[in-house]
This record gives sequence, C-alpha cells and structure tokens, in this order.
Amino acid sequence: MTIQTQTETPPLLRRDEAGVAWLTLNRPAARNALSVGLMAALDAALQAIATDPSVRVVVIGAAGPAFCAGHDLREMRANPGRASVEALFAQCSALMTRIVRLPKPVIARVHGIATAAGCQLVASCDLAVAASDARFATPGVNIGLFCSTPMVALSRNVGRKAAMEMLLTGDMIDAARAKDIGLINRVVPPDDLDGAVAALAAQIAGKSALTLAIGKEAFHRQADMELDAAYAFAAEAMTRNMMARDAGEGIDAFLAKRPPTWTDS
Amino acid sequence: MTIQTQTETPPLLRRDEAGVAWLTLNRPAARNALSVGLMAALDAALQAIATDPSVRVVVIGAAGPAFCAGHDLREMRANPGRASVEALFAQCSALMTRIVRLPKPVIARVHGIATAAGCQLVASCDLAVAASDARFATPGVNIGLFCSTPMVALSRNVGRKAAMEMLLTGDMIDAARAKDIGLINRVVPPDDLDGAVAALAAQIAGKSALTLAIGKEAFHRQADMELDAAYAFAAEAMTRNMMARDAGEGIDAFLAKRPPTWTDS
Amino acid sequence: MTIQTQTETPPLLRRDEAGVAWLTLNRPAARNALSVGLMAALDAALQAIATDPSVRVVVIGAAGPAFCAGHDLREMRANPGRASVEALFAQCSALMTRIVRLPKPVIARVHGIATAAGCQLVASCDLAVAASDARFATPGVNIGLFCSTPMVALSRNVGRKAAMEMLLTGDMIDAARAKDIGLINRVVPPDDLDGAVAALAAQIAGKSALTLAIGKEAFHRQADMELDAAYAFAAEAMTRNMMARDAGEGIDAFLAKRPPTWTDS
Repeated sequence: MTIQTQTETPPLLRRDEAGVAWLTLNRPAARNALSVGLMAALDAALQAIATDPSVRVVVIGAAGPAFCAGHDLREMRANPGRASVEALFAQCSALMTRIVRLPKPVIARVHGIATAAGCQLVASCDLAVAASDARFATPGVNIGLFCSTPMVALSRNVGRKAAMEMLLTGDMIDAARAKDIGLINRVVPPDDLDGAVAALAAQIAGKSALTLAIGKEAFHRQADMELDAAYAFAAEAMTRNMMARDAGEGIDAFLAKRPPTWTDS
Repeated sequence: MTIQTQTETPPLLRRDEAGVAWLTLNRPAARNALSVGLMAALDAALQAIATDPSVRVVVIGAAGPAFCAGHDLREMRANPGRASVEALFAQCSALMTRIVRLPKPVIARVHGIATAAGCQLVASCDLAVAASDARFATPGVNIGLFCSTPMVALSRNVGRKAAMEMLLTGDMIDAARAKDIGLINRVVPPDDLDGAVAALAAQIAGKSALTLAIGKEAFHRQADMELDAAYAFAAEAMTRNMMARDAGEGIDAFLAKRPPTWTDS
Repeated sequence: MTIQTQTETPPLLRRDEAGVAWLTLNRPAARNALSVGLMAALDAALQAIATDPSVRVVVIGAAGPAFCAGHDLREMRANPGRASVEALFAQCSALMTRIVRLPKPVIARVHGIATAAGCQLVASCDLAVAASDARFATPGVNIGLFCSTPMVALSRNVGRKAAMEMLLTGDMIDAARAKDIGLINRVVPPDDLDGAVAALAAQIAGKSALTLAIGKEAFHRQADMELDAAYAFAAEAMTRNMMARDAGEGIDAFLAKRPPTWTDS
C-alpha cells in the first residue's frame, strides 16, 4: 500500500470564470515541460471539462517565462526502456487528440517559447493567440529526436514547405511568421495578451454550447473525408443542429431583431 | 393538375458573351438568399452549361448590394420538418458539388457580403475575384446553426486555424484578409470588378475547352488521393490529354511560335 | 550490339562537398528541359545517393539562365505514340516520388524560370530557396496540355485557389508570390543564392542522418492519414527514433550543454 503525498505546487491550475475554464501549465522552473504528471493532470482536467455544462470555452496558458518547452527530457532519460517511451508518446498523442475531440473550443494563450510538444499543443488547439514576443519551434532534430508526433498537429495547420523548414532546421520562428503560416490566429502586445484572450473566449462563450459542440466535431470529422462523404456527413450534422431548440430560437431571434436566449439544447 | 405562373423577376439571370456565361443571383431584396427556387435555378443553369459547347467559362455574380447572404432563413423556418431540412441541405450540397464537378472553370465575382452558404459558394468556385469592400463570414454560430456544410468548402480552401476562427466567432473578414488566407484570388477596386473578372474569364476562355475539362476534373480527383494514387491518376489524365488533337496543335504552335487553333477535341 | 558513345556534356552534374551532394541540371541550351535522358540521370543519381552514407543533404540546381522549363516538347512530339507518352509521365512521376521518398532532405536551388515539370520539381523538394528574380508557372494549359502531373506536387504545397489560378491561367508568378503561397521557403538576392543554399544545407547536414531519415519518411507517411492513424504511426516512428543511439546522445549532450556527436545510428 502506498501513501500519496499531496504535492505543494500542482502541475496544473484551473480557474473558472464566466463560462471559461482557464487552465495554466504550472511547472515554470521546468519551462512547463510536459512530464507524465503534467500531461495526466491536463488530460484529467479536459476529461472533467468535457461533461461540465458550466464550461463553454477552454483556455490553455502557462506560468513563468515559457509557454511549454515540450517533453521533459530528464524524465525521458531516466526511463529509457521501450515500454516507457511507447507509453509516453501514446499518452501525449491521446492528450492532443482529446483537445481536438473535446466538444468545446480550446484557445491557446501563448507567451515565451512554445517548442516541440509545446508547439504541438498550440497546433492542437482550435485557436491560438500569442504575445508578439512569443516564439515557436520543433527543434527535436537538434537533439537527435525528430519532432514526429508534433509534426502531426503542425502539418495539419501549416503548409508543407513551412512545416518542413521548421522540422528540418529546428529554427525558432517569431509570432508574426507563425501567424503568416497559419500556426496561430492573432498576435498582440504582451500586455494585451490576457485581455485579448479573455475577449475572444467571452465572445465564443456567448454562443450556444450545443451548436459549438456539433460544429467542432463536424469540422474535424469531415476534414479527413473526400468531398461527397464530407458533404453527406456535414449535411447530417447541420440537419441535427437545425432540429435542435437553439437553432430555432437563434433564427427566430435574428428575424425578430432581438438577442437569442440559449438553453444549449 | 397545377398551373405554374411565371414569376416576373426570375431568381437567376444568364447572359452569354464571347464564350463566358455570366450568371447573376437575382434576389437583391433578399440579399440573394439561396431559396429552394434560386438553388434550383442555379443548378439547372449549370446543368445546361455543362454540355453547352458555346460556354467555356462561367462567372457567378449577384445583383443588388450583397453577393449572397446564405440560406433563406424565413423559408427555412416556414418548413421546419426534418424532411424539409434534410432536403434543403442535400440540395445545397449537390449544387456546390456540381460547381466543383462542372467541366468548365467557374469564377466567383464577389461584392458586398458573402456569408454562410454565400461564403461556401465563393469557396466552391475555382477562382474568386472580389471588390475591395467585399466581406466574408460563416456566421451561423450566431444564430445557433453552425455553418457545417459551408465549412466543407471553406476548409478545403483555407488553413485550419483561420477557418476555425471564422466558424467559431462568426466574425466578418475583409477582402484583403480573405485573400491572405486563400479564400479568394484577387482584390480589385469596386469600379474595376467587372473589368477584372471579364479579363480573367476571357483569358481562360482562350484556352482549349477540352484541356480545361481534363485538368479541372483531374485537380479535384487527385486532391483526395494519397501520393502514388494521385500520380497514377494524373499521369493517366495527362496521357489522355496528350493523345488529343489540341495538345499536338498547341505544342506544334508553340514550337513554331504561332498562335494555336483549338477545336476542343 | 550497340556501342554507346559518351556524350561530351552530361545532362546532370554532381559535386559533393561536406556531406552535401550538389546536383546540377545541365542542359542549359534547352533550358534544362526534362528529357528522358536527364530524368534518367537524375533518378540514377538520387538512387545512388539514397544509400550513400557520405551524403546527408541534396541540392538540386541548374546551369544556364533557367532552372527548368519542364518536359522536352520536341522530344515529346518526336515520340507521339501512347506507349511513349505513358512511359514519359510514368518516368516523371517516379522521379518526383523518389525525391519525396528519398531518406535525405532535398533542397531546390531556384533561379530563372521553373515551369511545368520544372515547377513540379521545386514543389517535390522538401525545401526551396529562390533568387528574387526567379519565376514560376504551370503553363501547360497554354499549349493544350494541362499540367496535371505537376498539379499533384503543386496542390500538396499550395492552397486550392492559388493552385487553380496558376493551372487555369498559366501565368507566371514571381518569387515573392511563390513564397506567400507556400511554394518556396526563402527568397534571396541572386548573388546570395549559392551562399544561402549552402548555409541551409550545411545547417541540416549537421544533424543526425538517421534522425532526418526517420523524420522525413514519417512526415510524408502521416500526411495522408486521418488523425488517429497519423498519431499511431508517428508515435511508433518517434519511439524507434528514441531507442536509437543518436537520440540518447543528443539529449545527454543537450542536458550537459555540450555539442552532440552523431554516429547516424
């Protein structure tokens, strides 16, 4: 029998406000490296949020000078067996997939560096807002470990030549370049980062949660289909959406020029 | 037996000139909302054009202050049953797919707003030229009805983060931003719109219609294939193209430094 | 029995320096048109390079005023039978696929024009650096022969509207536009082209060749998969990478703040 002691500084913080769950990676001394513990905490938080009707939008940010420096290299070298390594990448892939499949929009709030699996985290979120001094890289190639799982998310956001340049050189790109190539949505002055993210989150939190859930799921499902299958799937999703209460309410409110009242149903 | 009365203002206008069919959405008072009637008229026009050898290029534009505001919400609310809704989205998806599959290039001539299924229409055309004051949005989320079928076309033109931002916020983007993210090809001053579209249409109408048909079909077919299958398919299309009269004529004309004479065969 | 005479000017030159193989298309009078002979020579060189441990990075450049003007039209018209045409496009597709599948990064060094299969060659390379006066086109439509096989590579680099515009109009685009749409990575003054390519090649040649090989293969394999399959594949590739000597060495060197020593194993 083991006795688990409470850590004094939890690796992940959560603060809920006005329908928005703000998750904060909280290993600042390790530049928020995604240790097994931090990934487990983030995954558990997302799992809880998935079915929590009070949460309409999720923000993932980070404490300290960096957003996220990727995997925890010291921990990886301490557990070099194949089983540990396989488990680590499976855990990370499952976490990133959970963000994509979460029935609520997820916004990355990026400052400092977002590298390797940290860059993958940004790419896996639905939207990303970055401070103008944020920087991004997939530098695994520099330490002999190509960013192969980060590339899955990166290459679904960014064109082939730009993704290959990041992966083969390992070079940092700045926030302006990250916006140009489609990795992030918006760049703001560092002092405006929280305000810009809060405003975007509040705007989306004002929509019907049911509508957002149907739409986000449909987006990712249709993305991998050929055109006919994509339209068949999306038309079915849109019909289901139209038969729900909130669509009727939303359209009626629009036609009557009054604000809608969502019941998320 | 029903007697159908002729409507005084047809929902779609067609004018042919020098190998270009100019189709004009003509419900200006309804901001060219895609009613069942307008979609049927557009679909029928495209079906006729598909096999009309006099038409080499199609332009889709619109009358009045808006390009197209999407589905006709009043009509939708008047027919709220599941069968009507299913039929509506199936009709719209079939119309958009017909544009993609049409064996002639289709150019969107965009002014004013292009929203929801109107934005989808722009995304479904092969090329798009917009006035500098045109604006684009997928604002279904604001009325509780996520733009799930528009996203099929949008996400095949635009990167994931930019598409998601449009879909989740419902915000308008301007023509410059639409060009940056790949939704449209060219932005011109409003007064130059007709001239710019006419010049582009005339340029393409000067090519071999057979060559255009083979190429456009191959583009969309190979897009959903993995690399080896895509090359096998495209190489077969190019061989078929090379065996046709117009390729021989075109190459001979090029080598002899004389203009080619197409027979579209 | 045939006696093959050595041509005085080989269609392809190869120079190796510091782990970089510089391949030079060498039919300058024909604007480096991809004759059967040149394609065979390039394919053979790449095949040899694939298993040559002394080569870590490949550069493809060209002699004379043009990078590459595509297929050799005179040769094509001299061999107009279906079997010859089929063989030509099969050979070209196999060559382009060999670049994609080569277990070493390939950089295009582009100056002058890169048109039709020459543009495809640029698109098929992992990275591309161009002189500021370089220009790009897929002008087959102008000679009645749509650039259907070039489109396979083009449309995997560039958004749909931009690709369609190049394919349907046949117009040249300049290097700045080519960078904007994602066809190339970097634009430099003509006098800096060799220096910029050499610096980029040297940077990548400094990585572990095993790591590059695993990563490049994984990139292209996962690109055509849906998300779950892509992550399963990439996680396996990354595990294999992590179990190799160079990853351990690279991580240990990073943690010890010393430069790594690769053994490419």
